[in-house]
Amino acid sequence: MHFSIDTHAFITGVQNANKAVSSRTTIPILTGIKIKVETKGITLIGSDSDVSIETFIPKSDEEQTYMTIHEEGEMVLQAKYFSEIVRKMPGETLTLEKDGNMAATISSGNVVFHLNGFDPDNYPKLPQLEEEQVILLPQHLLKDIIRQTVFAVSTQETRPVLTGVHFSIKNRELTATATDSHRLAMRTVGVETDETLEINNVIIPGKSLTELSRILDDSEDMITIVVTKTQVLFKMNHLLFFSRLLDGKFPLTSNMIPSEGKTTVTLPTKALNQSLERAMLLSREAKNNVVHIKSIGTTEIEIMSISAEVGKVKESIEAQEINGAELQIAFNGKNILDALKTIDSEIISLMFTGTMSPFVVQPLDHQQMIHLFSPVRTS
Amino acid sequence: MHFSIDTHAFITGVQNANKAVSSRTTIPILTGIKIKVETKGITLIGSDSDVSIETFIPKSDEEQTYMTIHEEGEMVLQAKYFSEIVRKMPGETLTLEKDGNMAATISSGNVVFHLNGFDPDNYPKLPQLEEEQVILLPQHLLKDIIRQTVFAVSTQETRPVLTGVHFSIKNRELTATATDSHRLAMRTVGVETDETLEINNVIIPGKSLTELSRILDDSEDMITIVVTKTQVLFKMNHLLFFSRLLDGKFPLTSNMIPSEGKTTVTLPTKALNQSLERAMLLSREAKNNVVHIKSIGTTEIEIMSISAEVGKVKESIEAQEINGAELQIAFNGKNILDALKTIDSEIISLMFTGTMSPFVVQPLDHQQMIHLFSPVRTS
Repeated sequence: MHFSIDTHAFITGVQNANKAVSSRTTIPILTGIKIKVETKGITLIGSDSDVSIETFIPKSDEEQTYMTIHEEGEMVLQAKYFSEIVRKMPGETLTLEKDGNMAATISSGNVVFHLNGFDPDNYPKLPQLEEEQVILLPQHLLKDIIRQTVFAVSTQETRPVLTGVHFSIKNRELTATATDSHRLAMRTVGVETDETLEINNVIIPGKSLTELSRILDDSEDMITIVVTKTQVLFKMNHLLFFSRLLDGKFPLTSNMIPSEGKTTVTLPTKALNQSLERAMLLSREAKNNVVHIKSIGTTEIEIMSISAEVGKVKESIEAQEINGAELQIAFNGKNILDALKTIDSEIISLMFTGTMSPFVVQPLDHQQMIHLFSPVRTS
Repeated sequence: MHFSIDTHAFITGVQNANKAVSSRTTIPILTGIKIKVETKGITLIGSDSDVSIETFIPKSDEEQTYMTIHEEGEMVLQAKYFSEIVRKMPGETLTLEKDGNMAATISSGNVVFHLNGFDPDNYPKLPQLEEEQVILLPQHLLKDIIRQTVFAVSTQETRPVLTGVHFSIKNRELTATATDSHRLAMRTVGVETDETLEINNVIIPGKSLTELSRILDDSEDMITIVVTKTQVLFKMNHLLFFSRLLDGKFPLTSNMIPSEGKTTVTLPTKALNQSLERAMLLSREAKNNVVHIKSIGTTEIEIMSISAEVGKVKESIEAQEINGAELQIAFNGKNILDALKTIDSEIISLMFTGTMSPFVVQPLDHQQMIHLFSPVRTS
């Protein structure tokens, strides 16, 4: 194996593959990045066994020629050092040459690194997925879906399915749902797919989606999602992102969402957000995150929180509208704040169904997002 | 105690006083900020017993009137909550009123906080310093001096004096010296002071200087330093920064610095910096930070480092000039890198006195900075 390559293009490729590599893996070879050199270009692969990333640098494209291939071959080099070394290389191009059995010489300008590696034959093969269940949507939309759901997954391993986001498809509509059983976030979007395609119980680990989100940009470029029984593949330009799926049955969430409430409040997202941040100063200290809310007449909401040690805060927000019965309820302020940060709409509606029943928070200007919260019982 | 104040001015004052407060103090009242309200303005004090900051907000200045004082008085409020609360207040002005024995009501816009505090009578008094030994210099220069020495203090408590920076004054010249016994950083500057003033063995804790540095700006505004036997005071506009001094005798460093060497190398600071960063990728892994350097002829320097597990790196730097005997030496690359980052000059000179003797790194364009390093013995 022997090639010279544009340093900048190589850095980008190595950094992308490196995003899947975890230093905490128990499988030594997965601390490496696999480099596969063929006449058409160079493939770089990183994996932590849950997530795998395969990225390809073509020999050339419309813009420029990126490399000169002297000899094809495969190697696995230690990701941590390899990625830092290429990033710190001084020249416009760098040369990588196999040097002995499992080591490489990487040189650029006046700098020569000798770097040890692993036997490439031991690197696990990436899965070959049947492309039967395929969905297309723009990158920025997938990025939004992830941002607006993944925060609500459970961080506890007691119910593993809840650490993932549930994806379902019906009538060309994708619904993504996450819940930790105290709160639920649901986002729906239209997607391009076969109109007969129905998918249910596809649960993608939250960690995989968070990692994927770091690779996605805000462009209109389409991303292709391929779903199988055990794996999901996100296909972008020159980049494949594989994730395993979570085993198990996701709870049925559609019937949890109340259709009508006893009290409905409409108010500016930002006002509630800032008010809760102040309330959380004290309820975080009390370690229970409890915030109290109460309606005053038909235009005012009172927010209150208390910490026996530190003090208390009380403030009022002007609502656009309050309909229905008088309201007094307590909730986990942090959960609401997490959700508010993902709502891009300026006005939200809150729908309450009773002091001890779940309540709904929704943007006012569209129906594609629902947040559901359990209230907190206070004595 | 009762006043209304411009929120922005109050935030700045509270944040400054809060910089001295440590959450790890064992003295409960020092988790608070002392507020002293008088007709002329408001004084805010924070302290962790090593460092104390007193900041003053005048009732008004040329630009505007900052407050309305309804009643004078003193309080101590919990720093952590108090500083966050004022920062998150919605209105242009906020009102603070004593409420019961040791609590305050802080309100702004529709928001009302009740915050518990401490008995202000228990707050320690700040020292009254005799202004006999006084030095003046511009803020930006003091900031430079700190940046260029404090990185070299010892982080180990085995020799407490080495955790501080030694300040001495003679002939209107201030010399700041820090050493951890493997490396030494020394910076001299001219200062305004009584020409007969001689100060020696004033050792300011590195931590205090790092904290002070965060308050200093890059302006030409003069800062006044008052030195006593046990305390130092830095006086800025409306802000007093007190630090205790370290007890003990600082090692005599002036005779450690060799006056002439066997080999002198002149080269660009940036080239050596980048080269050492690459070398450190491997020598950090080897956990010894050892980098080898060797002269090749009269214009080239070879930098090499090695890690048995990962690999090795070798590169050459073009020197402007190499004079004297052939050179081959090993050193702690991290220590040199730390020093290079504080040298603003483009060209540096390295002076070596032998494989096992300390060597000097200096900027080429002025004489006000010296870095000294012990070499590393390699087998």
